[in-house]
Amino acid sequence: MMKFYEKYREAVNRNNSLVCVGLDTNPKLIPDFLNQEPDPIFAFNQRIIDATCDLVSAYKLNSAFYEAHGSKGFEILKKTRDYIPAHIPAILDGKRGDIGNSSKMYAKMAFDEFGFDAITVNPYLGGDSIEPFLEYKDKGIFVLCLTSNSGALDFQMHGKPPLYLRVAELVNKWNTNKNCGLVIGATKAELLKKVREFAPELILLIPGVGAQGGNIEEVVKYGVGTIHVEAKRKSCSAEVGLPLLIINSSRAIIYASHESDFAQKARESTITLRDNINKWRK
Amino acid sequence: MMKFYEKYREAVNRNNSLVCVGLDTNPKLIPDFLNQEPDPIFAFNQRIIDATCDLVSAYKLNSAFYEAHGSKGFEILKKTRDYIPAHIPAILDGKRGDIGNSSKMYAKMAFDEFGFDAITVNPYLGGDSIEPFLEYKDKGIFVLCLTSNSGALDFQMHGKPPLYLRVAELVNKWNTNKNCGLVIGATKAELLKKVREFAPELILLIPGVGAQGGNIEEVVKYGVGTIHVEAKRKSCSAEVGLPLLIINSSRAIIYASHESDFAQKARESTITLRDNINKWRK
Repeated sequence: MMKFYEKYREAVNRNNSLVCVGLDTNPKLIPDFLNQEPDPIFAFNQRIIDATCDLVSAYKLNSAFYEAHGSKGFEILKKTRDYIPAHIPAILDGKRGDIGNSSKMYAKMAFDEFGFDAITVNPYLGGDSIEPFLEYKDKGIFVLCLTSNSGALDFQMHGKPPLYLRVAELVNKWNTNKNCGLVIGATKAELLKKVREFAPELILLIPGVGAQGGNIEEVVKYGVGTIHVEAKRKSCSAEVGLPLLIINSSRAIIYASHESDFAQKARESTITLRDNINKWRK
Repeated sequence: MMKFYEKYREAVNRNNSLVCVGLDTNPKLIPDFLNQEPDPIFAFNQRIIDATCDLVSAYKLNSAFYEAHGSKGFEILKKTRDYIPAHIPAILDGKRGDIGNSSKMYAKMAFDEFGFDAITVNPYLGGDSIEPFLEYKDKGIFVLCLTSNSGALDFQMHGKPPLYLRVAELVNKWNTNKNCGLVIGATKAELLKKVREFAPELILLIPGVGAQGGNIEEVVKYGVGTIHVEAKRKSCSAEVGLPLLIINSSRAIIYASHESDFAQKARESTITLRDNINKWRK
Protein backbone atom coordinates (compact mmCIF):
# COMPACT_ATOMS: atom_id res chain seq x y z
CA MET A 1 0.00 0.00 0.00
CA MET A 2 1.25 3.47 -0.85
CA LYS A 3 2.17 5.51 2.19
CA PHE A 4 0.02 8.54 2.96
CA TYR A 5 3.01 10.80 2.55
CA GLU A 6 3.79 9.48 -0.94
CA LYS A 7 0.16 9.53 -2.00
CA TYR A 8 -0.10 13.13 -0.85
CA ARG A 9 3.08 14.08 -2.73
CA GLU A 10 1.83 12.43 -5.90
CA ALA A 11 -1.55 14.16 -5.69
CA VAL A 12 0.12 17.54 -5.11
CA ASN A 13 2.31 17.05 -8.15
CA ARG A 14 -0.35 15.51 -10.38
CA ASN A 15 -2.91 18.27 -9.72
CA ASN A 16 -0.44 21.06 -8.94
CA SER A 17 -2.57 21.82 -5.90
CA LEU A 18 -2.45 22.10 -2.12
CA VAL A 19 -6.23 22.35 -1.85
CA CYS A 20 -8.19 19.88 0.25
CA VAL A 21 -11.95 19.91 -0.22
CA GLY A 22 -13.87 19.35 3.02
CA LEU A 23 -17.01 17.27 2.56
CA ASP A 24 -18.91 18.60 5.60
CA THR A 25 -22.18 17.80 3.93
CA ASN A 26 -25.31 19.10 5.65
CA PRO A 27 -28.58 17.88 4.07
CA LYS A 28 -30.23 21.22 4.90
CA LEU A 29 -27.73 23.07 2.73
CA ILE A 30 -27.68 20.92 -0.39
CA PRO A 31 -29.72 21.87 -3.49
CA ASP A 32 -33.40 20.93 -3.24
CA PHE A 33 -33.52 18.82 -6.39
CA LEU A 34 -31.08 16.30 -4.87
CA ASN A 35 -33.67 15.33 -2.28
CA GLN A 36 -35.38 13.25 -4.99
CA GLU A 37 -32.33 10.97 -5.07
CA PRO A 38 -32.39 7.83 -2.89
CA ASP A 39 -29.33 9.08 -0.99
CA PRO A 40 -29.14 12.89 -1.31
CA ILE A 41 -25.96 13.36 0.75
CA PHE A 42 -24.05 10.77 -1.24
CA ALA A 43 -25.43 12.15 -4.54
CA PHE A 44 -24.15 15.59 -3.50
CA ASN A 45 -20.72 14.23 -2.53
CA GLN A 46 -20.39 12.28 -5.77
CA ARG A 47 -20.99 15.37 -7.88
CA ILE A 48 -18.56 17.47 -5.81
CA ILE A 49 -15.87 14.80 -6.12
CA ASP A 50 -16.46 14.40 -9.88
CA ALA A 51 -16.17 18.16 -10.32
CA THR A 52 -12.98 18.65 -8.28
CA CYS A 53 -10.87 15.47 -8.25
CA ASP A 54 -8.40 16.78 -10.82
CA LEU A 55 -7.86 19.93 -8.73
CA VAL A 56 -7.15 18.71 -5.20
CA SER A 57 -4.39 17.24 -3.03
CA ALA A 58 -6.87 15.52 -0.68
CA TYR A 59 -10.45 15.23 0.54
CA LYS A 60 -11.40 15.63 4.18
CA LEU A 61 -14.60 14.10 5.55
CA ASN A 62 -15.84 15.57 8.80
CA SER A 63 -17.13 12.59 10.75
CA ALA A 64 -19.59 14.69 12.79
CA PHE A 65 -21.74 15.48 9.74
CA TYR A 66 -22.18 11.76 9.02
CA GLU A 67 -22.56 10.46 12.57
CA ALA A 68 -25.40 12.91 13.10
CA HIS A 69 -27.48 10.49 10.99
CA GLY A 70 -26.57 7.40 13.02
CA SER A 71 -25.72 4.11 11.28
CA LYS A 72 -27.18 5.38 7.99
CA GLY A 73 -24.69 8.24 8.18
CA PHE A 74 -21.82 5.83 8.69
CA GLU A 75 -22.95 4.02 5.53
CA ILE A 76 -22.82 7.29 3.58
CA LEU A 77 -19.37 7.98 5.03
CA LYS A 78 -18.19 4.60 3.74
CA LYS A 79 -19.76 5.02 0.31
CA THR A 80 -18.27 8.50 -0.05
CA ARG A 81 -14.82 7.36 1.04
CA ASP A 82 -14.97 4.50 -1.49
CA TYR A 83 -15.99 6.92 -4.23
CA ILE A 84 -12.88 9.07 -3.81
CA PRO A 85 -10.35 8.09 -6.52
CA ALA A 86 -7.66 5.77 -5.16
CA HIS A 87 -4.83 8.17 -6.00
CA ILE A 88 -6.28 11.03 -3.91
CA PRO A 89 -5.73 10.85 -0.13
CA ALA A 90 -8.91 10.71 1.97
CA ILE A 91 -8.70 12.17 5.48
CA LEU A 92 -11.19 11.33 8.25
CA ASP A 93 -11.64 14.45 10.35
CA GLY A 94 -12.76 12.68 13.49
CA LYS A 95 -10.63 14.35 16.19
CA ARG A 96 -10.58 11.08 18.11
CA GLY A 97 -8.48 10.17 21.11
CA ASP A 98 -8.84 7.90 24.14
CA ILE A 99 -6.69 5.66 26.30
CA GLY A 100 -4.70 3.13 24.27
CA ASN A 101 -7.19 0.27 24.28
CA SER A 102 -9.94 2.52 22.90
CA SER A 103 -7.74 4.50 20.51
CA LYS A 104 -6.85 1.15 18.97
CA MET A 105 -10.54 0.69 18.19
CA TYR A 106 -10.80 4.18 16.69
CA ALA A 107 -7.78 3.44 14.49
CA LYS A 108 -9.39 0.16 13.44
CA MET A 109 -12.55 2.10 12.49
CA ALA A 110 -10.75 4.74 10.43
CA PHE A 111 -8.16 2.58 8.71
CA ASP A 112 -9.37 -1.05 8.60
CA GLU A 113 -13.13 -0.54 8.46
CA PHE A 114 -13.36 2.63 6.36
CA GLY A 115 -9.98 2.57 4.59
CA PHE A 116 -9.08 6.21 5.16
CA ASP A 117 -5.52 7.33 4.39
CA ALA A 118 -5.31 9.68 7.36
CA ILE A 119 -7.16 10.83 10.48
CA THR A 120 -7.23 13.86 12.76
CA VAL A 121 -6.71 13.10 16.47
CA ASN A 122 -6.92 15.05 19.71
CA PRO A 123 -3.74 15.28 21.85
CA TYR A 124 -5.33 15.87 25.29
CA LEU A 125 -4.73 12.31 26.54
CA GLY A 126 -1.06 12.35 25.53
CA GLY A 127 1.37 10.15 23.65
CA ASP A 128 0.09 6.71 24.56
CA SER A 129 -3.38 7.70 23.31
CA ILE A 130 -1.92 8.57 19.90
CA GLU A 131 0.45 5.60 19.71
CA PRO A 132 -2.16 3.11 18.37
CA PHE A 133 -2.75 5.44 15.42
CA LEU A 134 0.97 5.96 14.78
CA GLU A 135 1.47 2.22 14.56
CA TYR A 136 -0.25 2.37 11.18
CA LYS A 137 2.95 3.47 9.47
CA ASP A 138 1.30 3.91 6.06
CA LYS A 139 -1.34 6.31 7.37
CA GLY A 140 -1.22 10.01 8.16
CA ILE A 141 -1.94 11.13 11.75
CA PHE A 142 -2.82 14.80 12.10
CA VAL A 143 -2.76 15.97 15.70
CA LEU A 144 -4.84 19.00 16.71
CA CYS A 145 -2.45 21.78 17.64
CA LEU A 146 -3.96 25.25 17.19
CA THR A 147 -7.55 25.77 16.10
CA SER A 148 -9.28 28.70 14.45
CA ASN A 149 -12.15 29.20 16.92
CA SER A 150 -12.17 31.77 19.74
CA GLY A 151 -12.21 28.96 22.34
CA ALA A 152 -8.67 28.11 21.25
CA LEU A 153 -7.58 30.73 23.80
CA ASP A 154 -9.05 28.77 26.72
CA PHE A 155 -6.50 25.96 26.84
CA GLN A 156 -4.25 25.94 23.77
CA MET A 157 -2.50 29.10 24.97
CA HIS A 158 -2.15 27.84 28.56
CA GLY A 159 1.32 27.74 30.13
CA LYS A 160 4.80 28.71 29.02
CA PRO A 161 5.52 27.76 26.33
CA PRO A 162 1.85 27.75 25.39
CA LEU A 163 0.30 24.29 25.16
CA TYR A 164 0.03 24.31 21.37
CA LEU A 165 3.80 24.65 21.04
CA ARG A 166 4.33 21.85 23.53
CA VAL A 167 2.02 19.74 21.33
CA ALA A 168 4.00 20.68 18.21
CA GLU A 169 7.25 19.81 19.95
CA LEU A 170 6.15 16.38 21.17
CA VAL A 171 4.39 15.39 17.94
CA ASN A 172 7.59 16.27 16.07
CA LYS A 173 9.37 13.87 18.43
CA TRP A 174 6.78 11.12 17.88
CA ASN A 175 7.29 11.36 14.12
CA THR A 176 9.71 8.44 13.92
CA ASN A 177 7.58 6.70 11.28
CA LYS A 178 7.31 9.97 9.30
CA ASN A 179 3.54 9.77 9.46
CA CYS A 180 2.66 12.70 11.75
CA GLY A 181 1.13 16.05 10.94
CA LEU A 182 -0.49 18.95 12.79
CA VAL A 183 -3.82 20.73 12.43
CA ILE A 184 -3.35 24.52 12.55
CA GLY A 185 -6.21 26.97 12.03
CA ALA A 186 -5.63 29.40 9.16
CA THR A 187 -6.77 32.41 11.17
CA LYS A 188 -3.56 32.08 13.20
CA ALA A 189 -1.19 32.33 10.23
CA GLU A 190 1.40 34.39 12.09
CA LEU A 191 1.69 31.65 14.71
CA LEU A 192 2.58 29.11 12.01
CA LYS A 193 6.07 30.53 12.12
CA LYS A 194 6.45 29.54 15.77
CA VAL A 195 4.99 26.10 15.12
CA ARG A 196 7.55 25.59 12.37
CA GLU A 197 10.40 26.26 14.82
CA PHE A 198 9.19 23.32 16.90
CA ALA A 199 8.01 21.08 14.06
CA PRO A 200 9.91 21.77 10.84
CA GLU A 201 9.17 18.45 9.19
CA LEU A 202 5.49 17.83 9.77
CA ILE A 203 2.75 18.21 7.18
CA LEU A 204 0.37 20.94 8.31
CA LEU A 205 -3.35 20.53 7.69
CA ILE A 206 -4.83 24.03 7.61
CA PRO A 207 -8.60 24.39 7.92
CA GLY A 208 -10.44 27.71 7.95
CA VAL A 209 -9.42 29.07 4.57
CA GLY A 210 -12.20 30.31 2.29
CA ALA A 211 -11.95 30.97 -1.44
CA GLN A 212 -11.50 34.64 -0.57
CA GLY A 213 -9.24 34.05 2.43
CA GLY A 214 -7.06 37.12 2.82
CA ASN A 215 -4.36 35.30 4.76
CA ILE A 216 -3.41 32.74 2.12
CA GLU A 217 -0.17 34.58 1.48
CA GLU A 218 0.84 34.26 5.14
CA VAL A 219 -0.28 30.65 5.42
CA VAL A 220 1.78 29.64 2.41
CA LYS A 221 4.74 31.81 3.40
CA TYR A 222 5.04 30.40 6.90
CA GLY A 223 3.82 26.89 6.08
CA VAL A 224 5.97 26.29 3.03
CA GLY A 225 8.83 27.94 4.89
CA THR A 226 9.73 24.52 6.10
CA ILE A 227 11.38 23.76 2.77
CA HIS A 228 14.21 26.04 3.69
CA VAL A 229 14.56 24.48 7.11
CA GLU A 230 14.73 21.07 5.46
CA ALA A 231 17.15 22.24 2.82
CA LYS A 232 19.53 23.34 5.55
CA ARG A 233 19.25 19.92 7.18
CA LYS A 234 21.08 17.87 4.61
CA SER A 235 19.43 14.64 5.77
CA CYS A 236 16.09 15.81 4.43
CA SER A 237 17.33 17.33 1.22
CA ALA A 238 15.41 14.81 -0.88
CA GLU A 239 12.21 16.49 0.28
CA VAL A 240 13.17 19.98 -0.76
CA GLY A 241 10.38 21.35 -2.89
CA LEU A 242 7.55 19.51 -1.14
CA PRO A 243 5.32 22.09 0.52
CA LEU A 244 4.23 19.99 3.55
CA LEU A 245 0.96 21.86 3.56
CA ILE A 246 -2.68 20.85 3.01
CA ILE A 247 -5.08 23.77 2.87
CA ASN A 248 -8.69 22.82 3.46
CA SER A 249 -11.81 24.66 2.43
CA SER A 250 -15.25 23.22 3.06
CA ARG A 251 -18.26 25.52 2.97
CA ALA A 252 -16.76 28.11 0.59
CA ILE A 253 -16.38 25.36 -2.01
CA ILE A 254 -19.21 22.87 -1.53
CA TYR A 255 -21.84 25.57 -0.93
CA ALA A 256 -20.54 28.03 -3.52
CA SER A 257 -24.01 27.68 -5.04
CA HIS A 258 -27.24 26.18 -3.73
CA GLU A 259 -28.69 25.76 -7.21
CA SER A 260 -28.34 23.13 -9.94
CA ASP A 261 -24.94 24.58 -10.88
CA PHE A 262 -23.45 23.78 -7.44
CA ALA A 263 -20.87 21.30 -8.78
CA GLN A 264 -19.64 23.69 -11.47
CA LYS A 265 -19.44 26.52 -8.92
CA ALA A 266 -17.56 24.21 -6.54
CA ARG A 267 -15.10 23.53 -9.35
CA GLU A 268 -14.63 27.23 -10.01
CA SER A 269 -14.10 28.00 -6.30
CA THR A 270 -11.54 25.21 -6.08
CA ILE A 271 -9.65 26.59 -9.08
CA THR A 272 -9.70 30.08 -7.57
CA LEU A 273 -8.34 28.82 -4.25
CA ARG A 274 -5.74 26.58 -5.92
CA ASP A 275 -4.47 29.46 -8.02
CA ASN A 276 -4.51 31.87 -5.07
CA ILE A 277 -2.33 29.45 -3.15
CA ASN A 278 -0.01 28.64 -6.06
CA LYS A 279 0.60 32.35 -6.66
CA TRP A 280 2.50 32.41 -3.36
CA ARG A 281 4.28 29.07 -3.71
CA LYS A 282 7.09 30.32 -5.90
CA MET B 1 -37.90 14.77 29.99
CA MET B 2 -36.14 14.08 33.27
CA LYS B 3 -32.85 15.92 33.59
CA PHE B 4 -29.69 13.85 33.66
CA TYR B 5 -28.90 15.08 37.14
CA GLU B 6 -32.28 13.99 38.53
CA LYS B 7 -32.18 10.67 36.73
CA TYR B 8 -28.72 10.04 38.17
CA ARG B 9 -29.89 10.94 41.68
CA GLU B 10 -32.89 8.64 41.41
CA ALA B 11 -30.77 5.74 40.16
CA VAL B 12 -28.25 6.24 42.97
CA ASN B 13 -31.00 6.19 45.56
CA ARG B 14 -33.03 3.37 44.00
CA ASN B 15 -30.05 1.01 43.69
CA ASN B 16 -27.99 2.43 46.57
CA SER B 17 -25.06 2.44 44.20
CA LEU B 18 -22.45 4.70 42.61
CA VAL B 19 -21.31 1.99 40.21
CA CYS B 20 -21.38 2.58 36.48
CA VAL B 21 -20.89 -0.48 34.29
CA GLY B 22 -18.85 0.21 31.16
CA LEU B 23 -20.02 -1.72 28.11
CA ASP B 24 -16.70 -1.73 26.22
CA THR B 25 -17.70 -4.90 24.45
CA ASN B 26 -15.00 -6.58 22.37
CA PRO B 27 -16.25 -9.55 20.30
CA LYS B 28 -12.92 -11.32 20.84
CA LEU B 29 -13.45 -11.36 24.60
CA ILE B 30 -17.05 -12.53 24.85
CA PRO B 31 -17.92 -16.18 25.58
CA ASP B 32 -17.70 -18.43 22.53
CA PHE B 33 -21.27 -19.72 22.71
CA LEU B 34 -22.64 -16.23 22.05
CA ASN B 35 -21.17 -16.29 18.56
CA GLN B 36 -24.10 -18.51 17.55
CA GLU B 37 -26.46 -15.58 18.18
CA PRO B 38 -27.36 -13.35 15.21
CA ASP B 39 -25.83 -10.35 17.01
CA PRO B 40 -23.27 -11.61 19.55
CA ILE B 41 -22.25 -8.17 20.89
CA PHE B 42 -25.83 -7.15 21.53
CA ALA B 43 -26.64 -10.54 23.04
CA PHE B 44 -23.71 -10.08 25.43
CA ASN B 45 -24.76 -6.53 26.36
CA GLN B 46 -28.38 -7.61 26.97
CA ARG B 47 -27.31 -10.27 29.43
CA ILE B 48 -24.94 -7.92 31.26
CA ILE B 49 -27.66 -5.28 31.55
CA ASP B 50 -30.24 -7.82 32.73
CA ALA B 51 -27.82 -9.07 35.38
CA THR B 52 -26.79 -5.65 36.74
CA CYS B 53 -29.54 -3.07 36.19
CA ASP B 54 -30.73 -3.21 39.80
CA LEU B 55 -27.18 -2.55 41.02
CA VAL B 56 -25.96 0.47 39.06
CA SER B 57 -26.22 4.26 38.91
CA ALA B 58 -25.48 4.38 35.16
CA TYR B 59 -24.18 2.56 32.09
CA LYS B 60 -21.36 3.92 29.98
CA LEU B 61 -20.95 2.85 26.33
CA ASN B 62 -17.52 3.40 24.85
CA SER B 63 -18.21 4.55 21.32
CA ALA B 64 -14.85 3.29 20.00
CA PHE B 65 -15.79 -0.35 20.56
CA TYR B 66 -18.90 0.04 18.39
CA GLU B 67 -17.50 2.30 15.66
CA ALA B 68 -14.75 -0.25 15.06
CA HIS B 69 -17.47 -2.28 13.30
CA GLY B 70 -18.64 0.57 11.05
CA SER B 71 -22.35 1.19 10.46
CA LYS B 72 -23.23 -2.24 11.87
CA GLY B 73 -21.51 -1.18 15.09
CA PHE B 74 -23.55 2.00 15.25
CA GLU B 75 -26.70 -0.15 14.96
CA ILE B 76 -25.55 -2.26 17.93
CA LEU B 77 -24.81 0.93 19.87
CA LYS B 78 -28.37 2.11 19.23
CA LYS B 79 -29.96 -1.24 20.12
CA THR B 80 -27.91 -1.43 23.32
CA ARG B 81 -28.76 2.12 24.33
CA ASP B 82 -32.47 1.40 23.75
CA TYR B 83 -32.25 -1.76 25.86
CA ILE B 84 -31.02 0.11 28.94
CA PRO B 85 -33.99 0.66 31.29
CA ALA B 86 -35.40 4.18 30.98
CA HIS B 87 -34.74 5.02 34.65
CA ILE B 88 -30.99 4.30 34.42
CA PRO B 89 -28.79 7.03 32.84
CA ALA B 90 -26.92 5.96 29.70
CA ILE B 91 -23.63 7.77 29.02
CA LEU B 92 -21.97 7.84 25.59
CA ASP B 93 -18.22 7.77 26.14
CA GLY B 94 -17.26 9.39 22.85
CA LYS B 95 -14.72 12.06 23.93
CA ARG B 96 -15.95 14.26 21.10
CA GLY B 97 -15.10 17.90 20.46
CA ASP B 98 -14.75 20.15 17.42
CA ILE B 99 -15.46 23.73 16.41
CA GLY B 100 -19.05 24.80 17.14
CA ASN B 101 -20.63 23.83 13.85
CA SER B 102 -19.28 20.28 14.09
CA SER B 103 -19.82 19.86 17.84
CA LYS B 104 -23.47 20.65 17.16
CA MET B 105 -23.55 17.60 14.86
CA TYR B 106 -21.89 15.42 17.50
CA ALA B 107 -24.46 16.58 20.06
CA LYS B 108 -27.23 15.77 17.57
CA MET B 109 -25.76 12.30 17.15
CA ALA B 110 -25.50 11.55 20.88
CA PHE B 111 -28.74 13.11 22.09
CA ASP B 112 -31.24 13.29 19.19
CA GLU B 113 -30.17 10.28 17.14
CA PHE B 114 -29.15 7.85 19.91
CA GLY B 115 -31.01 9.31 22.88
CA PHE B 116 -28.14 9.17 25.37
CA ASP B 117 -28.54 10.98 28.70
CA ALA B 118 -24.94 12.16 28.81
CA ILE B 119 -21.73 12.30 26.81
CA THR B 120 -18.01 12.65 27.48
CA VAL B 121 -16.29 15.50 25.57
CA ASN B 122 -12.72 16.67 25.04
CA PRO B 123 -11.83 20.21 26.19
CA TYR B 124 -8.86 20.90 23.87
CA LEU B 125 -10.80 23.22 21.54
CA GLY B 126 -12.17 25.31 24.41
CA GLY B 127 -15.49 26.70 25.57
CA ASP B 128 -17.20 27.35 22.24
CA SER B 129 -16.55 23.73 21.20
CA ILE B 130 -18.41 22.51 24.31
CA GLU B 131 -21.20 25.08 24.15
CA PRO B 132 -23.36 23.14 21.61
CA PHE B 133 -23.43 20.21 24.05
CA LEU B 134 -24.20 22.41 27.05
CA GLU B 135 -27.22 23.83 25.25
CA TYR B 136 -28.91 20.49 25.86
CA LYS B 137 -29.88 21.48 29.40
CA ASP B 138 -31.41 18.10 30.24
CA LYS B 139 -28.26 16.17 29.34
CA GLY B 140 -25.02 15.57 31.26
CA ILE B 141 -21.76 16.83 29.73
CA PHE B 142 -18.65 15.22 31.19
CA VAL B 143 -15.48 17.05 30.20
CA LEU B 144 -12.16 15.16 30.18
CA CYS B 145 -10.01 16.60 32.94
CA LEU B 146 -7.42 14.13 34.25
CA THR B 147 -7.00 10.68 32.77
CA SER B 148 -5.55 7.48 34.20
CA ASN B 149 -3.00 6.68 31.46
CA SER B 150 0.70 7.54 31.63
CA GLY B 151 0.31 9.95 28.69
CA ALA B 152 -1.74 12.19 30.98
CA LEU B 153 1.61 13.67 32.02
CA ASP B 154 2.34 14.95 28.50
CA PHE B 155 -0.18 17.79 28.40
CA GLN B 156 -2.64 17.63 31.31
CA MET B 157 0.11 18.64 33.74
CA HIS B 158 1.41 21.44 31.50
CA GLY B 159 1.65 24.96 32.94
CA LYS B 160 0.93 26.57 36.30
CA PRO B 161 -1.64 25.79 37.46
CA PRO B 162 -1.50 22.51 35.55
CA LEU B 163 -3.88 22.34 32.58
CA TYR B 164 -6.24 19.86 34.25
CA LEU B 165 -6.97 22.34 37.05
CA ARG B 166 -7.57 25.10 34.52
CA VAL B 167 -10.06 22.75 32.82
CA ALA B 168 -11.77 22.06 36.16
CA GLU B 169 -11.97 25.78 36.90
CA LEU B 170 -13.47 26.77 33.54
CA VAL B 171 -15.93 23.86 33.39
CA ASN B 172 -17.14 24.83 36.86
CA LYS B 173 -17.77 28.30 35.44
CA TRP B 174 -19.61 26.93 32.38
CA ASN B 175 -21.95 24.98 34.67
CA THR B 176 -24.75 27.56 34.57
CA ASN B 177 -27.28 24.95 33.42
CA LYS B 178 -26.09 22.56 36.14
CA ASN B 179 -25.35 19.91 33.53
CA CYS B 180 -21.55 19.69 33.63
CA GLY B 181 -19.28 17.05 35.05
CA LEU B 182 -15.62 16.05 34.84
CA VAL B 183 -13.84 12.81 33.94
CA ILE B 184 -11.06 12.02 36.43
CA GLY B 185 -9.00 8.85 36.32
CA ALA B 186 -9.15 6.81 39.50
CA THR B 187 -5.43 6.24 39.60
CA LYS B 188 -5.01 9.90 40.51
CA ALA B 189 -7.20 9.79 43.61
CA GLU B 190 -5.03 12.18 45.63
CA LEU B 191 -5.45 14.82 42.91
CA LEU B 192 -9.24 14.65 43.27
CA LYS B 193 -8.83 16.84 46.32
CA LYS B 194 -7.32 19.62 44.20
CA VAL B 195 -9.96 19.24 41.52
CA ARG B 196 -12.63 19.63 44.18
CA GLU B 197 -11.16 22.99 45.24
CA PHE B 198 -11.74 24.28 41.71
CA ALA B 199 -14.96 22.43 40.97
CA PRO B 200 -16.89 21.67 44.13
CA GLU B 201 -20.29 21.17 42.50
CA LEU B 202 -19.60 19.01 39.47
CA ILE B 203 -20.43 15.33 39.18
CA LEU B 204 -17.19 13.39 38.72
CA LEU B 205 -17.13 10.40 36.39
CA ILE B 206 -14.29 8.16 37.56
CA PRO B 207 -13.05 5.45 35.20
CA GLY B 208 -10.22 3.06 35.95
CA VAL B 209 -11.56 1.35 39.06
CA GLY B 210 -11.49 -2.44 39.11
CA ALA B 211 -13.47 -4.71 41.42
CA GLN B 212 -10.33 -4.97 43.55
CA GLY B 213 -9.29 -1.32 43.22
CA GLY B 214 -7.21 -0.44 46.25
CA ASN B 215 -7.87 3.27 45.99
CA ILE B 216 -11.65 3.18 46.32
CA GLU B 217 -11.37 4.59 49.82
CA GLU B 218 -9.48 7.64 48.54
CA VAL B 219 -11.73 8.12 45.52
CA VAL B 220 -14.83 8.14 47.70
CA LYS B 221 -13.21 10.24 50.43
CA TYR B 222 -12.05 13.01 48.08
CA GLY B 223 -14.90 12.73 45.60
CA VAL B 224 -17.74 12.61 48.10
CA GLY B 225 -15.92 15.29 50.06
CA THR B 226 -17.88 17.76 48.03
CA ILE B 227 -20.89 17.20 50.24
CA HIS B 228 -19.17 19.08 52.98
CA VAL B 229 -18.25 21.89 50.61
CA GLU B 230 -21.86 22.07 49.52
CA ALA B 231 -23.15 21.84 53.07
CA LYS B 232 -21.10 24.88 53.99
CA ARG B 233 -22.55 26.77 51.04
CA LYS B 234 -26.10 27.17 52.28
CA SER B 235 -27.39 27.79 48.75
CA CYS B 236 -26.72 24.19 47.85
CA SER B 237 -27.87 22.62 51.07
CA ALA B 238 -30.68 20.77 49.32
CA GLU B 239 -28.05 18.62 47.66
CA VAL B 240 -26.33 17.56 50.86
CA GLY B 241 -26.09 13.83 50.81
CA LEU B 242 -25.77 13.43 47.06
CA PRO B 243 -22.35 12.01 46.35
CA LEU B 244 -21.75 13.68 42.93
CA LEU B 245 -19.69 10.68 41.93
CA ILE B 246 -20.04 7.99 39.26
CA ILE B 247 -17.47 5.22 39.53
CA ASN B 248 -17.05 3.22 36.34
CA SER B 249 -15.71 -0.28 35.93
CA SER B 250 -15.67 -1.99 32.55
CA ARG B 251 -13.42 -4.99 32.03
CA ALA B 252 -13.33 -6.12 35.67
CA ILE B 253 -17.11 -6.52 35.53
CA ILE B 254 -18.06 -7.54 32.00
CA TYR B 255 -15.16 -9.97 31.63
CA ALA B 256 -15.25 -11.34 35.19
CA SER B 257 -15.79 -14.70 33.47
CA HIS B 258 -15.41 -15.82 29.87
CA GLU B 259 -17.66 -18.84 30.37
CA SER B 260 -21.41 -19.37 30.33
CA ASP B 261 -21.65 -17.89 33.84
CA PHE B 262 -20.34 -14.48 32.66
CA ALA B 263 -23.55 -12.61 33.48
CA GLN B 264 -23.75 -14.07 36.98
CA LYS B 265 -20.07 -13.28 37.58
CA ALA B 266 -20.62 -9.74 36.27
CA ARG B 267 -23.44 -9.39 38.80
CA GLU B 268 -21.23 -10.63 41.63
CA SER B 269 -18.39 -8.26 40.65
CA THR B 270 -20.82 -5.35 40.52
CA ILE B 271 -22.13 -6.19 44.00
CA THR B 272 -18.57 -6.41 45.34
CA LEU B 273 -17.64 -3.04 43.86
CA ARG B 274 -20.89 -1.40 44.99
CA ASP B 275 -20.38 -2.63 48.55
CA ASN B 276 -16.69 -1.66 48.57
CA ILE B 277 -17.70 1.86 47.59
CA ASN B 278 -20.63 2.08 49.99
CA LYS B 279 -18.41 1.02 52.88
CA TRP B 280 -16.62 4.37 52.59
CA ARG B 281 -19.69 6.51 51.91
CA LYS B 282 -20.78 6.83 55.50
